[in-house]
Amino acid sequence: MATLPSAHFCHTYSPPLPPSSSSSSVSYLPAYSSVHGRLQRVSISSIPRRFVSVKVSQHNAVGLQDGPPAPAFNPIENEAPFEKLKDGLLSAPSSKESEDTAVFNVNESESTVSITVVGASGDLAKKKIFPALFALFYEDCLPKHFTIYGYARSKMTDAELRDMVSKTLTCRIDKRENCSEKMEQFLQRCFYHSGQYDSQDHFTELDKKLKEHEVGRVPNRLFYLSVPPNIFIDAVRCASSSASSCNGWTRVIVEKPFGRDSESSATLTSALKQYLEEDQIFRIDHYLGKELVENLSVLRFSNLIFEPLWSRQYIRNVQLIFSEDFGTEGRGGYFDNYGIIRDIMQNHLLQILALFAMETPVSLDAEDIRNEKVKVLRSMRPLQLENVVTGQYKSHVRGGITYPAYTDDKTVPKDSLTPTFAAAALFIDNARWDGVPFLMKAGKALHNKRAEIRVQFRHVPGNLYRNIGTDLDRTTNELVIRVQPDEAIVLKINNKVPGLGMRLDRSNLNLHYAARYSNEIPDAYERLLLDAIEGERRLFIRSDELDAAWALFTPLLKEIEEKKVIPEYYPYGSRGPVGAHYLAARYKVRWGDVGVEV
Amino acid sequence: MATLPSAHFCHTYSPPLPPSSSSSSVSYLPAYSSVHGRLQRVSISSIPRRFVSVKVSQHNAVGLQDGPPAPAFNPIENEAPFEKLKDGLLSAPSSKESEDTAVFNVNESESTVSITVVGASGDLAKKKIFPALFALFYEDCLPKHFTIYGYARSKMTDAELRDMVSKTLTCRIDKRENCSEKMEQFLQRCFYHSGQYDSQDHFTELDKKLKEHEVGRVPNRLFYLSVPPNIFIDAVRCASSSASSCNGWTRVIVEKPFGRDSESSATLTSALKQYLEEDQIFRIDHYLGKELVENLSVLRFSNLIFEPLWSRQYIRNVQLIFSEDFGTEGRGGYFDNYGIIRDIMQNHLLQILALFAMETPVSLDAEDIRNEKVKVLRSMRPLQLENVVTGQYKSHVRGGITYPAYTDDKTVPKDSLTPTFAAAALFIDNARWDGVPFLMKAGKALHNKRAEIRVQFRHVPGNLYRNIGTDLDRTTNELVIRVQPDEAIVLKINNKVPGLGMRLDRSNLNLHYAARYSNEIPDAYERLLLDAIEGERRLFIRSDELDAAWALFTPLLKEIEEKKVIPEYYPYGSRGPVGAHYLAARYKVRWGDVGVEV
Repeated sequence: MATLPSAHFCHTYSPPLPPSSSSSSVSYLPAYSSVHGRLQRVSISSIPRRFVSVKVSQHNAVGLQDGPPAPAFNPIENEAPFEKLKDGLLSAPSSKESEDTAVFNVNESESTVSITVVGASGDLAKKKIFPALFALFYEDCLPKHFTIYGYARSKMTDAELRDMVSKTLTCRIDKRENCSEKMEQFLQRCFYHSGQYDSQDHFTELDKKLKEHEVGRVPNRLFYLSVPPNIFIDAVRCASSSASSCNGWTRVIVEKPFGRDSESSATLTSALKQYLEEDQIFRIDHYLGKELVENLSVLRFSNLIFEPLWSRQYIRNVQLIFSEDFGTEGRGGYFDNYGIIRDIMQNHLLQILALFAMETPVSLDAEDIRNEKVKVLRSMRPLQLENVVTGQYKSHVRGGITYPAYTDDKTVPKDSLTPTFAAAALFIDNARWDGVPFLMKAGKALHNKRAEIRVQFRHVPGNLYRNIGTDLDRTTNELVIRVQPDEAIVLKINNKVPGLGMRLDRSNLNLHYAARYSNEIPDAYERLLLDAIEGERRLFIRSDELDAAWALFTPLLKEIEEKKVIPEYYPYGSRGPVGAHYLAARYKVRWGDVGVEV
Repeated sequence: MATLPSAHFCHTYSPPLPPSSSSSSVSYLPAYSSVHGRLQRVSISSIPRRFVSVKVSQHNAVGLQDGPPAPAFNPIENEAPFEKLKDGLLSAPSSKESEDTAVFNVNESESTVSITVVGASGDLAKKKIFPALFALFYEDCLPKHFTIYGYARSKMTDAELRDMVSKTLTCRIDKRENCSEKMEQFLQRCFYHSGQYDSQDHFTELDKKLKEHEVGRVPNRLFYLSVPPNIFIDAVRCASSSASSCNGWTRVIVEKPFGRDSESSATLTSALKQYLEEDQIFRIDHYLGKELVENLSVLRFSNLIFEPLWSRQYIRNVQLIFSEDFGTEGRGGYFDNYGIIRDIMQNHLLQILALFAMETPVSLDAEDIRNEKVKVLRSMRPLQLENVVTGQYKSHVRGGITYPAYTDDKTVPKDSLTPTFAAAALFIDNARWDGVPFLMKAGKALHNKRAEIRVQFRHVPGNLYRNIGTDLDRTTNELVIRVQPDEAIVLKINNKVPGLGMRLDRSNLNLHYAARYSNEIPDAYERLLLDAIEGERRLFIRSDELDAAWALFTPLLKEIEEKKVIPEYYPYGSRGPVGAHYLAARYKVRWGDVGVEV
């Protein structure tokens, strides 16, 4: 039986609970288990490990990272699990086992989650993390007992934090009932602790405060590190050594950038691993939390009609397109050190590519999926400079308004060559995809805002209608998965134009989310935060995935920097450098997003 | 190069005409030729025959029926083409050649078409034929020179005919400009001739009148026989012997029923062939003229994504569904002698089935397509009674209104066992379709009015999501082609319900014609009349197709009548006999039209 991803039914589903004995313990072995009132499907393969006691399982967790799970019921191997704890480096391994323990051995009312947003006064925290947490609370998706702590350097009272947070909370469009009441309840569970990111003492103080909220319950702790990369390690060290849970799980969500290249990424990872086990690290790529990226696997693996099509035999090329209609706008300081390739391609687009191209995983379990994604990345050729076009936006006057150049941004060096646009052709040298170009395109200050996947199918061999369609490129079938905005799935087909003549056109088989689904689509951060709370790692990036991703891009990035490759300048608000078309043309590809509505 | 079906661009397209020499004749060999101002694409394979003179080609035409075309440039074989003419049985063979002659040797202004609607006072003529002719005229699709004659037994003046016709003419929804002016122009070209259907003299009189209109032009003549089957042959005999074109083509459109079984159909065909060549006979099945039936081949053959799916490997079953929401309503006299199986299944649904299931034809030429359709029909098992469910509607009271039983119809015998509903499972024993049930369902007085094709795909092997979807039958992909009303193409896919949980639903990729195309969809009769005028036979049923179709149904029909099989009674306005579900269940099929909007 395949394992399902944790099914977040939240309050929309009441799981069939067993009789009252359920709260007592391990004697009940359900196919469904209730976690925080949500339905969680249990994989048979992992069931035996649930009987392992906390101590035993803690040690097992250490060996979990990539290899097969250690055999259950093997107490001999599991004698000294707290050795490591003594250094203060690993207070609790927060392994799958301890999570399972929480599920099976501890009644929900006996556990609690403390969520600490480190960098609470930052933009991401305000715009995404707190609102996502509130949305989860509103949807009854957070555990019954939880506490949220903001942690940052600035001095602030709890009330001030609440005031700050309340300004960015919004209620669901489709559920405005009791919203202010719910908001008030949520805010009452938000607290603030001021401290330095590298101060053990300050984290020890946090630990004390957390304990006050956790008293009498198994404490689980989630740290969301919303801080610049140079502070990462300090914060992880302090959180891990001074504020880890002693007998629950401790997990850390980290945001990109995960280094600038293979070396810096490896350094970061090895530093993280001084303090954390692999399964405590939740590297977030918020594109993986987007509804239509999540749906990619559903579309592909639950629909027979796509099964025969998903290979070089039927697919001509795949396009991964990201565009923003604004520039750095005074916030180019961070960006200039990274550039669009690191900022968008090496992570967001490459992750989507890997999900798109992977072989069928054994199951939907996180490790099975991540194993397949790594295989795709490892089958790919490192990028060649000749397969990449870079661009940078320049000033443009339109309708009397002057739009700034990238280098007009005061936070950006005047002579910066950092690409704000890039297009690249990538190849997967495996049996399924050999010879199929995967084209990526990402840019800032373009004419629209969009993220989409476009799959162009091959031409019909021996097309009976070949003399009617003039441009074979236009008669190609295309599957468009629009990730944002205005989520949609569109399958472009050739169709007879109704009428007495025999003319073909390209029509769309449409699934427009706004028209089909009335419920609001959750923000990616909601999904990812909930997954982290539930220990679902499917949508987070494993260390070996990250290594493989950097291995593809590092040589290129070095070459661009060493050769000081001059980007092709394109006007702010334009479609980007024309070089992208020549790159596509080299591989007989035509960008699908040009001159079409969908 | 494949041949395209005649492209009726009408006034929407101006073909690239050659310099003035074009009207002079055979010396110009264009890839496009202009017929009546429309663009007609020319098949290379047929080009040589255009150089054959009229006399030579007339004889070639005789041998055309099923075999390969006679070699061109073979004057020795073609010595006595007018032999047959002398009996008065065949005035002109109206072959492809003479059509080509009209195209190439005769300037458009030198030819004319006389369209005689035999049975002009009947319902079909009033409701369909005259309105279709007017629509063609309105769209500039009729030849420049044409004359329309109504022919029937009743006495009527031209003015009376025009008055009668004018009542059923409508203007295009999307083009109301100059409509009454156009209508007036059209009516001025309509005339009436009263006569018996079996009177050579009366047809000779018609011939004289037609000649008055044709003077100075090559006369082409089209007879639309909108008369009961018992009059068919008389009318064909008289029209052919007394009113055929002497040096243009003569074509005859005949409407179903084409017999009641193999024997009567063969008798009818052989009688027709006494007077007509195969390629003069245009057996109309107006379902073949429907937009979405026409589109079936486009969809299948011009879209790569459907190519791998179109076989037993991916398709579980195909459903062909026809329903009417009204009964015979006092017009059951004709119907009672035929029943729903002959009226709908043996022709409309079987034709769609053949188009759906055929192998890829060599080209879109009529003979290539019809050859493939015949192969499908000949690969099918004759229907077994055990694979058929018949029904008859009974009276039903709803909302205080009493809906009549079939046998309440005064024109129907009280003890009639004629089926007004039938469901059947058919099988094609060839490599592509072995074991795939093709289910048909057709009925009158049902709960809705609909004609559609539903293709249910197999389940996903090793479905990763199998534990989420409860009912595998509901998670099947399905392609729905709704022929009428409200034309649409819908591809049902499994999709993730947006939200934090992992739930799948069945969503639709939609192509809704009304939303996509602003132009009105032409009535099937318009297309078919235009095709007949242009000599395009693709959508008409060839004699061997008809034979093969009857061969499938005749044993069943005889058995039903001999055994006096009692139909399952179903209430007027219901979904029909439940027996249809048991029939489907026997082949592990679930009717796709039950309980769904699309």
